[in-house]
Amino acid sequence: MSSIPKIVILGAGYGGILTAQRLQKELNYNEADVTLVNRHDYHYITTHLHMPAAGTDSIENTRVSISKLIDEFKIDLVKSSVQEIRLHDKKVILEDGTLSYDYLIIALGGDPETFGIPGLAEHAMSIRSINSVRLIRSHIEHQFALYKNERRPQERINFVVGGAGFSGIEFVAELADRIPKLCREYDVDPALVNIYNIEAAPTALPGFAPELVDYAMETLKKKGVTFKLGTAIKECTPHGVILSTGEEIRSNTVVWTGGIRGNRLVESAGFETMRGRVKVDEYLRAPGHDNIYIIGDNSLIFNGERPYPPTAQMAMQQGVCCAQNIVATIRGKVLRKFEYQHKGTVASLGKGQGIGVVGNKTYQGWKAAQLKKLVDLRYLYVIGGIMLVLKKGRFL
Amino acid sequence: MSSIPKIVILGAGYGGILTAQRLQKELNYNEADVTLVNRHDYHYITTHLHMPAAGTDSIENTRVSISKLIDEFKIDLVKSSVQEIRLHDKKVILEDGTLSYDYLIIALGGDPETFGIPGLAEHAMSIRSINSVRLIRSHIEHQFALYKNERRPQERINFVVGGAGFSGIEFVAELADRIPKLCREYDVDPALVNIYNIEAAPTALPGFAPELVDYAMETLKKKGVTFKLGTAIKECTPHGVILSTGEEIRSNTVVWTGGIRGNRLVESAGFETMRGRVKVDEYLRAPGHDNIYIIGDNSLIFNGERPYPPTAQMAMQQGVCCAQNIVATIRGKVLRKFEYQHKGTVASLGKGQGIGVVGNKTYQGWKAAQLKKLVDLRYLYVIGGIMLVLKKGRFL
Repeated sequence: MSSIPKIVILGAGYGGILTAQRLQKELNYNEADVTLVNRHDYHYITTHLHMPAAGTDSIENTRVSISKLIDEFKIDLVKSSVQEIRLHDKKVILEDGTLSYDYLIIALGGDPETFGIPGLAEHAMSIRSINSVRLIRSHIEHQFALYKNERRPQERINFVVGGAGFSGIEFVAELADRIPKLCREYDVDPALVNIYNIEAAPTALPGFAPELVDYAMETLKKKGVTFKLGTAIKECTPHGVILSTGEEIRSNTVVWTGGIRGNRLVESAGFETMRGRVKVDEYLRAPGHDNIYIIGDNSLIFNGERPYPPTAQMAMQQGVCCAQNIVATIRGKVLRKFEYQHKGTVASLGKGQGIGVVGNKTYQGWKAAQLKKLVDLRYLYVIGGIMLVLKKGRFL
Repeated sequence: MSSIPKIVILGAGYGGILTAQRLQKELNYNEADVTLVNRHDYHYITTHLHMPAAGTDSIENTRVSISKLIDEFKIDLVKSSVQEIRLHDKKVILEDGTLSYDYLIIALGGDPETFGIPGLAEHAMSIRSINSVRLIRSHIEHQFALYKNERRPQERINFVVGGAGFSGIEFVAELADRIPKLCREYDVDPALVNIYNIEAAPTALPGFAPELVDYAMETLKKKGVTFKLGTAIKECTPHGVILSTGEEIRSNTVVWTGGIRGNRLVESAGFETMRGRVKVDEYLRAPGHDNIYIIGDNSLIFNGERPYPPTAQMAMQQGVCCAQNIVATIRGKVLRKFEYQHKGTVASLGKGQGIGVVGNKTYQGWKAAQLKKLVDLRYLYVIGGIMLVLKKGRFL
C-alpha cells in the first residue's frame, strides 16, 4: 500500500475529464495516485449528441477515446460502472471490483427527470449517451421502413419531442433536417410526416431574449415543426402521448428532453439532495465531507435565489477548480472559491441556423451557426489540442 | 372505344419489362394499345436485392424508374396494385379501377413459399421487394442499437437465414460482410455475433457441382457463417426458430429465403396450378386461354421430368418470346415455340468472391465475382442501354 493520497474521479464527462487533465498537469511525480472511472472507454460530447441522435452527424465525431485525452502513465483508467458510493468506508463499489479513495470527485452526470409523468420512463427515449442516441437514430429510421411494410400507420411517422429547452430545440431542428432525407430514402411523402414539440412552459428556450426565441420558433416552423407550448404531457403510452388538453398524439417515437436530475447514486450515498443534486460549498465540496467534490449535473450552485442550470460550461469550470483545490489541500495551501464565469450561450437550429448571446451581443442565423461551431472547436482544442480539432472538428 | 387490340401487362419485373420493351419496339403505330401495370413506379433488380437487404449496397443501385425504361408515348403506365383477374369478363381489377384486355401478360412475380412451417409468415422477413429489403436492413441495424441499450440479449445478435439456395447463400455472404461494420459502428465484439444458415436439404446450392459448393461453404465458414444442413426449421416463433433436431436458436431476426411459389392472384383467377404455378403451353399461353400469357415465377416449364427453377434469365427470355407471339397473333402470323437457352449461373459470395458455371467451364473466387458483375452490367445494358450502365452499374 502506498502512503500517497488516492484520488478517484467518477465519470469522464466534461467535469471528470477536465479534472483529470488538470490534476495530471499540476501534480508532481508520486504526489498522488489518480484513478479515473468511466463506464465506457470513450468521452462523449454531450452538447453534440442531438446530431447523431437525429442522424445528421456521425457517432465518431461525437466521442473521443479517453486514452487519447489522458496520460495513462500518470492516471489509471478503470472501465467500469459505479454501483455504490460507501462514504463511511471511503470506498466505491464497481460492478467488477472496489476502489478506496482519500479524495473523491463525483462527476457522474445526471439522470433524465421525468417529473413522475406516467409511462415516460418506459416508453420514451432520451438523449443521454452514445448508446441512447444510436438507439434513437436507428429507431427513427426503422419507423420509416416499418411504415412502408405495414398499412401506412400514421403513428410511425409522427415524431414527438417532449421539452422545448436547449436540448429539445436543438434535437428538433436536426430531426427536421433529417426527415426529408429519410423520406427520399424510403419513398415517403414529406407532407405526411409530423414533428411535434411539446412544452409545458409558456415559452420555448428559457433564458433567451424573446426576439431570439421568436426567431428560433419561426425558423423551426418553416422546417415543419409543430409547437405545442403551455401544454404538458400527461401520460406517455406505447402508442403516443396524451396531452394536458386531452388531445392524444399517436406516435411510436417519443424523445424526452424535459430535464436532468441528479444521479440516483448520489442520493443513495446519503448526501442531502434537492432533485438529486447536492448544494456544494464555495470550494465545490459536499457539505460535511471535505474530501469529496461534486461537480457537473450532480452539483447545485446558486446564482442569487435560483440555481444555475447544469451546463457543459459550468462542469468544465468546476473541473478545473476542483482539481486546483485538491492539489492545494494535498500541499496544505489555501483553496480557491469557485466563481462561475458565463461566457455566452449558442443554440443550433439545424444546418446553417442558430441563435446566440455572448456578453450583451445577440446573434442569429448563419453567424450564430458559425459561433456554435467555434464553441465546439474550442472545446476539442481545450481537451485534445489541435490534433483533436483536425480529427473530429466540423468546419462546414 | 378503340377497335385496336388492348394488351395489358401485369408486373414490371424481368418478364414484364422485357415484354413491354419488345412490344414497344415491334408494334407499329396504332397496331395495339399497351398498358403496363405495376405496384411501384420503379422496376427493381431482384437478383441484386440481397445487397441492400444486408446494407452492402444502396437501394438506388437496385431499382430504376420505369419511365426511364419505356416510352410513355407508346405504352401507358398504371401505378396500381392488382386485386383480381376476371377471366370471363376479360378484366383486371385494380385497387383503384379496372382495366379490360384482349391480350393479358401475367408477369406478377411469386409469393414466398413457406411450406406451411408454423410462424414463418408471421415472424420471418423475406427478400422480395424494395420495401422488404429496406425493412431487413433497418431491422438488422436496429438489433445492434437495441442490444447496447438492453441487457445484451444474445438473440439480438443471432441472425438466422432459412434456406441455402441461391438467395440464401448470396444474402448470408453479404450479411457476413456487413456484420463487422455494424460491430464497429455499435461497439459490439464481432466474436459474439452468430450467423446461422439453416437448410432442410442435405447440401447447399443445389445445381452447382460439389466442388463449387464446397468452395462456397468454406468461403462462408471463414467469414463466420455456421451452416446447419439437412436440418429443417420446424417452427418460427417471436423468439427464434425451433429446428427439426429439437434445438432452439434464439434470434430476433429470421430471414426466409426458402423458395418462391406462384402468386395467389393466379390461383384465385381459376387457372389450374401446381404450387401456384401454371403449366403453360409451348407458346407460353395459359391452357385454354390463347390470349393469356403467363411468364416468370408464375409459369411452369418442364425440362424433361423436372420443372426449370424460376430465374431472371428464364423470365427475360419468356418476355421476349411472349411479346413476339402476341405481335404474331395480331398479325395472323405463326407463333414461335419457347425454348430456354441456359447461359450459365453465377452466385456471389460477398466482396470479391463467387462461384459460377458458364457452358462447361467453372469459375471461383475473384474471377467469378467479376463475372457476376458482368452479368449485372449486361442486364442494365439490355433494359436501359449504356446510360443506365453508367448510372447504376457497380464496377468495383
